[in-house]
Amino acid sequence: MITETHFQKELEELKGNLLKMAALVEESIRDAVRSLVKRDSELAQQTFAKEDRINSLEIVIDDMCLRLLALRQPMAVDLRFITAAMKIITDLERMGDQAVNIAERAISLNQEPQLKPYIDIPRMAEITQSMVKDVLDAFVTKDSKLARSVCERDDVVDGLNDQVFRELLTYMMSDPKTTPRAVHLMIVCRCLERIADHATNIAEDVIFMVDALVIKHHADVKEADGK
Amino acid sequence: MITETHFQKELEELKGNLLKMAALVEESIRDAVRSLVKRDSELAQQTFAKEDRINSLEIVIDDMCLRLLALRQPMAVDLRFITAAMKIITDLERMGDQAVNIAERAISLNQEPQLKPYIDIPRMAEITQSMVKDVLDAFVTKDSKLARSVCERDDVVDGLNDQVFRELLTYMMSDPKTTPRAVHLMIVCRCLERIADHATNIAEDVIFMVDALVIKHHADVKEADGK
Repeated sequence: MITETHFQKELEELKGNLLKMAALVEESIRDAVRSLVKRDSELAQQTFAKEDRINSLEIVIDDMCLRLLALRQPMAVDLRFITAAMKIITDLERMGDQAVNIAERAISLNQEPQLKPYIDIPRMAEITQSMVKDVLDAFVTKDSKLARSVCERDDVVDGLNDQVFRELLTYMMSDPKTTPRAVHLMIVCRCLERIADHATNIAEDVIFMVDALVIKHHADVKEADGK
Repeated sequence: MITETHFQKELEELKGNLLKMAALVEESIRDAVRSLVKRDSELAQQTFAKEDRINSLEIVIDDMCLRLLALRQPMAVDLRFITAAMKIITDLERMGDQAVNIAERAISLNQEPQLKPYIDIPRMAEITQSMVKDVLDAFVTKDSKLARSVCERDDVVDGLNDQVFRELLTYMMSDPKTTPRAVHLMIVCRCLERIADHATNIAEDVIFMVDALVIKHHADVKEADGK
Protein backbone atom coordinates (compact mmCIF):
# COMPACT_ATOMS: atom_id res chain seq x y z
CA MET A 1 0.00 0.00 0.00
CA ILE A 2 2.54 2.54 1.19
CA THR A 3 5.35 3.29 -1.20
CA GLU A 4 8.48 2.05 0.50
CA THR A 5 11.43 4.37 0.51
CA HIS A 6 14.89 2.91 0.26
CA PHE A 7 15.41 3.79 3.91
CA GLN A 8 12.34 1.80 4.95
CA LYS A 9 13.66 -1.20 3.02
CA GLU A 10 16.96 -0.89 4.84
CA LEU A 11 15.13 -0.80 8.17
CA GLU A 12 13.22 -3.95 7.19
CA GLU A 13 16.50 -5.64 6.33
CA LEU A 14 17.86 -4.60 9.72
CA LYS A 15 14.80 -6.08 11.45
CA GLY A 16 15.20 -9.32 9.48
CA ASN A 17 18.80 -9.66 10.60
CA LEU A 18 17.90 -8.95 14.23
CA LEU A 19 15.23 -11.67 14.18
CA LYS A 20 17.69 -14.06 12.56
CA MET A 21 20.26 -13.36 15.28
CA ALA A 22 17.64 -13.84 18.02
CA ALA A 23 16.50 -17.13 16.46
CA LEU A 24 20.09 -18.40 16.50
CA VAL A 25 20.46 -17.44 20.16
CA GLU A 26 17.20 -19.19 20.99
CA GLU A 27 18.32 -22.38 19.20
CA SER A 28 21.70 -22.15 20.86
CA ILE A 29 20.11 -22.14 24.34
CA ARG A 30 17.80 -25.01 23.35
CA ASP A 31 20.70 -27.14 22.07
CA ALA A 32 22.82 -26.45 25.17
CA VAL A 33 20.06 -27.40 27.61
CA ARG A 34 18.99 -30.44 25.54
CA SER A 35 22.60 -31.54 25.57
CA LEU A 36 22.40 -31.53 29.37
CA VAL A 37 18.95 -33.07 29.75
CA LYS A 38 19.43 -35.77 27.09
CA ARG A 39 23.04 -36.29 28.21
CA ASP A 40 24.10 -35.89 24.58
CA SER A 41 27.39 -34.02 24.33
CA GLU A 42 27.14 -34.00 20.53
CA LEU A 43 24.29 -31.49 20.83
CA ALA A 44 26.60 -29.16 22.75
CA GLN A 45 28.66 -28.87 19.55
CA GLN A 46 25.65 -27.26 17.86
CA THR A 47 25.87 -24.45 20.38
CA PHE A 48 29.55 -23.90 19.64
CA ALA A 49 28.85 -23.82 15.90
CA LYS A 50 26.06 -21.29 16.34
CA GLU A 51 28.25 -19.01 18.43
CA ASP A 52 30.38 -18.19 15.38
CA ARG A 53 27.30 -17.32 13.33
CA ILE A 54 25.93 -15.17 16.16
CA ASN A 55 29.22 -13.31 16.46
CA SER A 56 29.40 -12.70 12.71
CA LEU A 57 25.85 -11.39 12.64
CA GLU A 58 26.65 -8.97 15.45
CA ILE A 59 29.38 -7.41 13.32
CA VAL A 60 27.20 -7.31 10.19
CA ILE A 61 24.30 -5.64 12.04
CA ASP A 62 26.56 -3.18 13.84
CA ASP A 63 28.02 -2.07 10.49
CA MET A 64 24.55 -1.80 9.02
CA CYS A 65 23.42 0.45 11.90
CA LEU A 66 26.46 2.71 11.62
CA ARG A 67 25.92 3.02 7.88
CA LEU A 68 22.26 3.94 8.41
CA LEU A 69 23.18 6.55 11.03
CA ALA A 70 25.87 8.08 8.84
CA LEU A 71 24.10 8.04 5.48
CA ARG A 72 20.43 8.41 6.36
CA GLN A 73 20.79 10.67 9.40
CA PRO A 74 17.53 9.40 10.86
CA MET A 75 15.50 11.45 13.30
CA ALA A 76 13.39 10.72 16.40
CA VAL A 77 11.81 7.25 16.31
CA ASP A 78 14.13 5.81 13.65
CA LEU A 79 17.19 7.18 15.43
CA ARG A 80 16.10 5.57 18.69
CA PHE A 81 15.32 2.32 16.84
CA ILE A 82 18.79 2.09 15.31
CA THR A 83 20.69 2.98 18.49
CA ALA A 84 18.54 0.50 20.42
CA ALA A 85 19.38 -2.16 17.80
CA MET A 86 23.09 -1.54 18.44
CA LYS A 87 22.59 -2.18 22.14
CA ILE A 88 20.37 -5.20 21.55
CA ILE A 89 22.94 -7.04 19.46
CA THR A 90 25.42 -6.68 22.33
CA ASP A 91 22.89 -8.36 24.62
CA LEU A 92 22.19 -11.09 22.06
CA GLU A 93 25.87 -11.79 21.61
CA ARG A 94 26.31 -12.16 25.37
CA MET A 95 23.34 -14.49 25.56
CA GLY A 96 25.15 -16.61 22.98
CA ASP A 97 28.20 -16.65 25.28
CA GLN A 98 26.03 -17.81 28.17
CA ALA A 99 24.63 -20.62 26.01
CA VAL A 100 28.20 -21.71 25.24
CA ASN A 101 28.91 -21.67 28.98
CA ILE A 102 25.92 -23.97 29.54
CA ALA A 103 27.08 -26.30 26.74
CA GLU A 104 30.53 -26.53 28.35
CA ARG A 105 29.01 -27.38 31.73
CA ALA A 106 26.76 -29.97 30.05
CA ILE A 107 29.78 -31.73 28.58
CA SER A 108 31.39 -31.90 32.03
CA LEU A 109 28.20 -33.05 33.73
CA ASN A 110 27.50 -35.69 31.07
CA GLN A 111 30.73 -37.44 32.07
CA GLU A 112 29.46 -38.02 35.63
CA PRO A 113 26.39 -39.85 36.95
CA GLN A 114 23.35 -37.58 36.89
CA LEU A 115 22.95 -35.84 40.26
CA LYS A 116 19.19 -35.35 40.11
CA PRO A 117 16.33 -35.41 37.60
CA TYR A 118 16.35 -32.21 35.57
CA ILE A 119 12.89 -30.68 35.86
CA ASP A 120 13.24 -27.00 36.76
CA ILE A 121 16.23 -26.38 34.48
CA PRO A 122 14.35 -27.27 31.25
CA ARG A 123 11.47 -25.10 32.48
CA MET A 124 13.82 -22.19 33.08
CA ALA A 125 15.30 -22.75 29.63
CA GLU A 126 11.89 -22.81 27.96
CA ILE A 127 10.91 -19.54 29.60
CA THR A 128 14.17 -17.80 28.75
CA GLN A 129 13.89 -18.98 25.12
CA SER A 130 10.37 -17.53 24.93
CA MET A 131 11.70 -14.29 26.43
CA VAL A 132 14.40 -14.02 23.75
CA LYS A 133 11.89 -14.64 20.97
CA ASP A 134 9.18 -12.35 22.29
CA VAL A 135 11.42 -9.46 23.20
CA LEU A 136 12.79 -9.27 19.67
CA ASP A 137 9.27 -9.52 18.25
CA ALA A 138 8.27 -6.73 20.64
CA PHE A 139 11.18 -4.65 19.39
CA VAL A 140 10.55 -4.98 15.67
CA THR A 141 6.78 -4.55 16.01
CA LYS A 142 7.17 -1.81 18.68
CA ASP A 143 4.85 -3.72 21.04
CA SER A 144 5.45 -2.45 24.58
CA LYS A 145 2.77 -4.74 26.04
CA LEU A 146 4.65 -7.81 24.84
CA ALA A 147 7.86 -6.27 26.20
CA ARG A 148 6.22 -5.87 29.60
CA SER A 149 5.23 -9.54 29.61
CA VAL A 150 8.92 -10.38 29.08
CA CYS A 151 9.83 -8.36 32.20
CA GLU A 152 7.24 -10.29 34.18
CA ARG A 153 8.65 -13.65 33.08
CA ASP A 154 12.01 -12.59 34.49
CA ASP A 155 10.55 -12.91 37.99
CA VAL A 156 9.49 -16.49 37.24
CA VAL A 157 13.01 -17.35 36.09
CA ASP A 158 14.51 -15.73 39.19
CA GLY A 159 12.09 -17.73 41.36
CA LEU A 160 13.05 -21.02 39.68
CA ASN A 161 16.71 -20.13 40.00
CA ASP A 162 16.37 -19.53 43.76
CA GLN A 163 14.49 -22.81 44.12
CA VAL A 164 17.11 -24.89 42.29
CA PHE A 165 19.84 -23.04 44.14
CA ARG A 166 18.42 -23.97 47.56
CA GLU A 167 17.86 -27.55 46.45
CA LEU A 168 21.44 -27.89 45.25
CA LEU A 169 22.72 -26.35 48.47
CA THR A 170 20.89 -29.12 50.36
CA TYR A 171 22.58 -31.77 48.20
CA MET A 172 25.98 -30.23 48.86
CA MET A 173 25.47 -29.99 52.60
CA SER A 174 24.15 -33.51 53.04
CA ASP A 175 26.71 -35.14 50.74
CA PRO A 176 29.86 -33.12 49.98
CA LYS A 177 30.78 -35.53 47.15
CA THR A 178 27.95 -33.98 45.14
CA THR A 179 29.49 -30.50 45.41
CA PRO A 180 31.33 -30.31 42.06
CA ARG A 181 28.26 -31.46 40.11
CA ALA A 182 25.95 -29.22 42.13
CA VAL A 183 28.21 -26.22 41.44
CA HIS A 184 28.14 -26.97 37.69
CA LEU A 185 24.34 -27.05 37.84
CA MET A 186 24.24 -23.81 39.83
CA ILE A 187 26.27 -22.19 37.10
CA VAL A 188 23.93 -23.54 34.41
CA CYS A 189 21.02 -21.93 36.27
CA ARG A 190 22.91 -18.70 36.69
CA CYS A 191 23.60 -18.62 32.94
CA LEU A 192 19.90 -19.05 32.22
CA GLU A 193 19.10 -16.34 34.74
CA ARG A 194 21.59 -14.04 33.03
CA ILE A 195 20.06 -14.72 29.63
CA ALA A 196 16.69 -13.77 31.11
CA ASP A 197 18.32 -10.60 32.51
CA HIS A 198 19.60 -9.67 29.05
CA ALA A 199 16.13 -10.22 27.60
CA THR A 200 14.72 -8.01 30.35
CA ASN A 201 17.28 -5.31 29.57
CA ILE A 202 16.14 -5.37 25.95
CA ALA A 203 12.49 -5.31 27.05
CA GLU A 204 13.20 -2.18 29.09
CA ASP A 205 14.79 -0.55 26.05
CA VAL A 206 11.74 -1.47 23.95
CA ILE A 207 9.36 0.01 26.51
CA PHE A 208 11.54 3.11 26.72
CA MET A 209 11.61 3.40 22.96
CA VAL A 210 7.89 2.87 22.52
CA ASP A 211 6.49 4.70 25.50
CA ALA A 212 9.39 7.11 25.94
CA LEU A 213 9.03 6.07 29.54
CA VAL A 214 11.97 5.32 31.77
CA ILE A 215 10.83 2.29 33.69
CA LYS A 216 14.41 1.21 34.02
CA HIS A 217 15.72 1.50 37.57
CA HIS A 218 12.20 1.34 38.91
CA ALA A 219 11.60 -1.69 41.02
CA ASP A 220 8.34 -2.90 39.60
CA VAL A 221 6.97 -2.86 36.09
CA LYS A 222 3.43 -3.35 37.39
CA GLU A 223 3.74 -0.24 39.55
CA ALA A 224 4.48 1.78 36.43
CA ASP A 225 1.41 0.22 34.79
CA GLY A 226 -0.86 0.92 37.72
CA LYS A 227 0.00 4.56 38.26
CA MET B 1 45.18 26.54 20.68
CA ILE B 2 42.57 25.06 18.38
CA THR B 3 39.32 26.99 18.17
CA GLU B 4 36.73 24.76 19.73
CA THR B 5 33.49 24.36 17.89
CA HIS B 6 30.30 24.00 19.87
CA PHE B 7 30.22 20.33 18.87
CA GLN B 8 33.68 19.74 20.27
CA LYS B 9 32.60 21.30 23.55
CA GLU B 10 29.62 18.97 23.67
CA LEU B 11 31.91 15.99 23.06
CA GLU B 12 34.11 17.16 25.94
CA GLU B 13 31.07 17.38 28.18
CA LEU B 14 30.11 13.86 27.13
CA LYS B 15 33.60 12.61 27.99
CA GLY B 16 33.42 14.34 31.37
CA ASN B 17 30.16 12.63 32.21
CA LEU B 18 31.48 9.24 31.12
CA LEU B 19 34.52 9.62 33.37
CA LYS B 20 32.28 10.72 36.25
CA MET B 21 30.08 7.65 35.77
CA ALA B 22 33.12 5.36 35.64
CA ALA B 23 34.54 6.96 38.82
CA LEU B 24 31.27 6.27 40.64
CA VAL B 25 31.31 2.64 39.51
CA GLU B 26 34.92 2.29 40.66
CA GLU B 27 34.07 3.75 44.11
CA SER B 28 31.00 1.57 44.30
CA ILE B 29 33.07 -1.60 43.81
CA ARG B 30 35.62 -0.35 46.34
CA ASP B 31 32.96 0.34 48.99
CA ALA B 32 31.27 -3.02 48.44
CA VAL B 33 34.50 -5.00 48.79
CA ARG B 34 35.71 -2.92 51.75
CA SER B 35 32.39 -3.57 53.42
CA LEU B 36 33.16 -7.29 53.12
CA VAL B 37 36.83 -7.16 54.08
CA LYS B 38 36.41 -4.73 56.99
CA ARG B 39 33.14 -6.45 57.98
CA ASP B 40 31.49 -3.02 57.99
CA SER B 41 27.93 -3.22 56.68
CA GLU B 42 27.58 0.57 56.85
CA LEU B 43 29.99 0.82 53.92
CA ALA B 44 27.64 -1.34 51.86
CA GLN B 45 25.10 1.47 52.10
CA GLN B 46 27.50 3.69 50.15
CA THR B 47 27.23 1.28 47.26
CA PHE B 48 23.43 1.43 47.32
CA ALA B 49 23.51 5.25 47.40
CA LYS B 50 25.90 5.36 44.44
CA GLU B 51 23.71 3.04 42.40
CA ASP B 52 21.02 5.72 42.11
CA ARG B 53 23.55 8.27 40.91
CA ILE B 54 24.98 5.80 38.39
CA ASN B 55 21.52 5.04 37.04
CA SER B 56 20.66 8.74 36.72
CA LEU B 57 23.88 9.44 34.88
CA GLU B 58 23.14 6.62 32.44
CA ILE B 59 19.89 8.33 31.46
CA VAL B 60 21.53 11.77 31.22
CA ILE B 61 24.36 10.49 29.01
CA ASP B 62 22.01 8.44 26.83
CA ASP B 63 19.90 11.56 26.18
CA MET B 64 23.00 13.57 25.46
CA CYS B 65 24.18 11.01 22.88
CA LEU B 66 20.80 10.87 21.16
CA ARG B 67 20.70 14.67 20.99
CA LEU B 68 24.20 14.79 19.49
CA LEU B 69 23.28 12.16 16.90
CA ALA B 70 20.06 13.95 15.95
CA LEU B 71 21.28 17.54 15.93
CA ARG B 72 24.94 17.28 14.95
CA GLN B 73 24.67 14.32 12.59
CA PRO B 74 28.29 13.36 13.23
CA MET B 75 30.33 11.36 10.73
CA ALA B 76 32.97 8.64 10.92
CA VAL B 77 35.07 8.85 14.09
CA ASP B 78 32.62 11.01 16.04
CA LEU B 79 29.70 8.81 15.04
CA ARG B 80 31.54 5.72 16.25
CA PHE B 81 32.54 7.53 19.45
CA ILE B 82 28.96 8.46 20.32
CA THR B 83 27.44 5.05 19.53
CA ALA B 84 30.24 3.41 21.51
CA ALA B 85 29.47 5.74 24.43
CA MET B 86 25.86 4.54 24.37
CA LYS B 87 27.02 0.94 24.67
CA ILE B 88 29.58 1.76 27.34
CA ILE B 89 27.05 3.34 29.70
CA THR B 90 25.02 0.12 29.54
CA ASP B 91 28.12 -1.79 30.65
CA LEU B 92 28.86 0.73 33.40
CA GLU B 93 25.32 0.55 34.71
CA ARG B 94 25.52 -3.25 34.89
CA MET B 95 28.84 -3.03 36.71
CA GLY B 96 27.03 -0.86 39.25
CA ASP B 97 24.43 -3.63 39.61
CA GLN B 98 27.18 -6.16 40.24
CA ALA B 99 28.68 -3.92 42.94
CA VAL B 100 25.25 -3.80 44.61
CA ASN B 101 25.13 -7.57 44.43
CA ILE B 102 28.53 -7.73 46.18
CA ALA B 103 27.34 -5.26 48.85
CA GLU B 104 24.27 -7.42 49.53
CA ARG B 105 26.41 -10.54 49.90
CA ALA B 106 28.76 -8.61 52.20
CA ILE B 107 25.89 -7.71 54.52
CA SER B 108 24.86 -11.39 54.72
CA LEU B 109 28.43 -12.58 55.26
CA ASN B 110 29.14 -9.95 57.92
CA GLN B 111 26.44 -11.53 60.08
CA GLU B 112 28.33 -14.85 60.21
CA PRO B 113 31.80 -15.75 61.47
CA GLN B 114 34.39 -15.11 58.77
CA LEU B 115 35.01 -18.29 56.75
CA LYS B 116 38.57 -17.50 55.70
CA PRO B 117 40.99 -14.57 55.46
CA TYR B 118 40.12 -12.45 52.45
CA ILE B 119 43.27 -12.13 50.37
CA ASP B 120 42.48 -12.92 46.75
CA ILE B 121 39.12 -11.14 46.74
CA PRO B 122 40.58 -7.68 47.53
CA ARG B 123 43.22 -8.35 44.88
CA MET B 124 40.54 -9.21 42.32
CA ALA B 125 38.66 -6.06 43.32
CA GLU B 126 41.74 -3.86 42.95
CA ILE B 127 42.43 -5.20 39.47
CA THR B 128 38.82 -4.82 38.33
CA GLN B 129 38.74 -1.24 39.68
CA SER B 130 41.89 -0.43 37.72
CA MET B 131 40.29 -1.99 34.63
CA VAL B 132 37.20 0.23 34.95
CA LYS B 133 39.32 3.35 35.36
CA ASP B 134 41.79 2.57 32.59
CA VAL B 135 39.28 1.42 30.02
CA LEU B 136 37.36 4.69 30.29
CA ASP B 137 40.60 6.65 30.08
CA ALA B 138 41.49 4.56 27.03
CA PHE B 139 38.12 5.39 25.51
CA VAL B 140 38.21 9.15 25.97
CA THR B 141 41.88 9.45 24.95
CA LYS B 142 41.44 6.87 22.14
CA ASP B 143 44.39 4.85 23.50
CA SER B 144 44.14 1.31 22.11
CA LYS B 145 47.35 0.23 23.84
CA LEU B 146 45.85 0.98 27.25
CA ALA B 147 42.67 -0.84 26.15
CA ARG B 148 44.73 -3.91 25.27
CA SER B 149 46.30 -3.89 28.74
CA VAL B 150 42.76 -4.01 30.16
CA CYS B 151 42.02 -7.15 28.12
CA GLU B 152 45.16 -8.76 29.48
CA ARG B 153 44.17 -8.03 33.08
CA ASP B 154 40.93 -9.93 32.50
CA ASP B 155 42.96 -13.15 32.34
CA VAL B 156 44.47 -12.37 35.76
CA VAL B 157 41.00 -11.85 37.24
CA ASP B 158 39.76 -15.09 35.68
CA GLY B 159 42.77 -16.91 37.13
CA LEU B 160 42.14 -15.55 40.63
CA ASN B 161 38.46 -16.41 40.32
CA ASP B 162 39.28 -20.04 39.42
CA GLN B 163 41.70 -20.20 42.34
CA VAL B 164 39.21 -18.92 44.93
CA PHE B 165 36.53 -21.12 43.41
CA ARG B 166 38.62 -24.28 43.90
CA GLU B 167 39.57 -23.23 47.41
CA LEU B 168 35.94 -22.64 48.38
CA LEU B 169 34.96 -25.97 46.85
CA THR B 170 37.47 -27.63 49.18
CA TYR B 171 35.93 -25.89 52.18
CA MET B 172 32.47 -27.03 51.18
CA MET B 173 33.52 -30.61 50.62
CA SER B 174 35.43 -30.96 53.85
CA ASP B 175 32.83 -29.19 55.99
CA PRO B 176 29.32 -28.87 54.55
CA LYS B 177 28.38 -26.32 57.24
CA THR B 178 30.59 -23.82 55.41
CA THR B 179 28.56 -24.21 52.18
CA PRO B 180 26.21 -21.20 52.49
CA ARG B 181 29.09 -18.82 53.27
CA ALA B 182 31.28 -20.36 50.58
CA VAL B 183 28.49 -19.94 48.02
CA HIS B 184 28.10 -16.26 48.98
CA LEU B 185 31.83 -15.79 48.46
CA MET B 186 31.70 -17.62 45.13
CA ILE B 187 29.04 -15.19 44.02
CA VAL B 188 31.14 -12.21 45.15
CA CYS B 189 33.99 -13.51 42.99
CA ARG B 190 31.68 -14.12 40.09
CA CYS B 191 30.42 -10.53 40.35
CA LEU B 192 33.99 -9.23 40.24
CA GLU B 193 34.71 -11.48 37.29
CA ARG B 194 31.63 -10.12 35.50
CA ILE B 195 32.72 -6.53 36.17
CA ALA B 196 36.06 -7.41 34.60
CA ASP B 197 34.17 -8.93 31.64
CA HIS B 198 32.23 -5.70 31.16
CA ALA B 199 35.49 -3.72 31.24
CA THR B 200 36.91 -6.12 28.66
CA ASN B 201 33.85 -5.65 26.45
CA ILE B 202 34.43 -1.91 26.56
CA ALA B 203 38.14 -2.40 25.86
CA GLU B 204 37.24 -4.40 22.75
CA ASP B 205 34.94 -1.58 21.61
CA VAL B 206 37.74 0.93 22.15
CA ILE B 207 40.22 -1.14 20.16
CA PHE B 208 37.62 -1.57 17.43
CA MET B 209 36.92 2.14 17.41
CA VAL B 210 40.56 3.16 17.39
CA ASP B 211 42.09 0.53 15.19
CA ALA B 212 38.94 -0.30 13.23
CA LEU B 213 40.05 -3.83 13.93
CA VAL B 214 37.66 -6.54 14.98
CA ILE B 215 39.55 -8.35 17.70
CA LYS B 216 36.27 -9.28 19.29
CA HIS B 217 35.51 -12.97 19.03
CA HIS B 218 39.17 -13.75 18.59
CA ALA B 219 40.52 -15.88 21.32
CA ASP B 220 43.72 -14.05 22.09
CA VAL B 221 44.57 -10.39 22.03
CA LYS B 222 48.26 -11.15 21.82
CA GLU B 223 47.73 -13.27 18.75
CA ALA B 224 46.16 -10.28 17.02
CA ASP B 225 49.16 -8.20 18.05
CA GLY B 226 51.67 -10.73 16.84
CA LYS B 227 50.24 -11.34 13.41
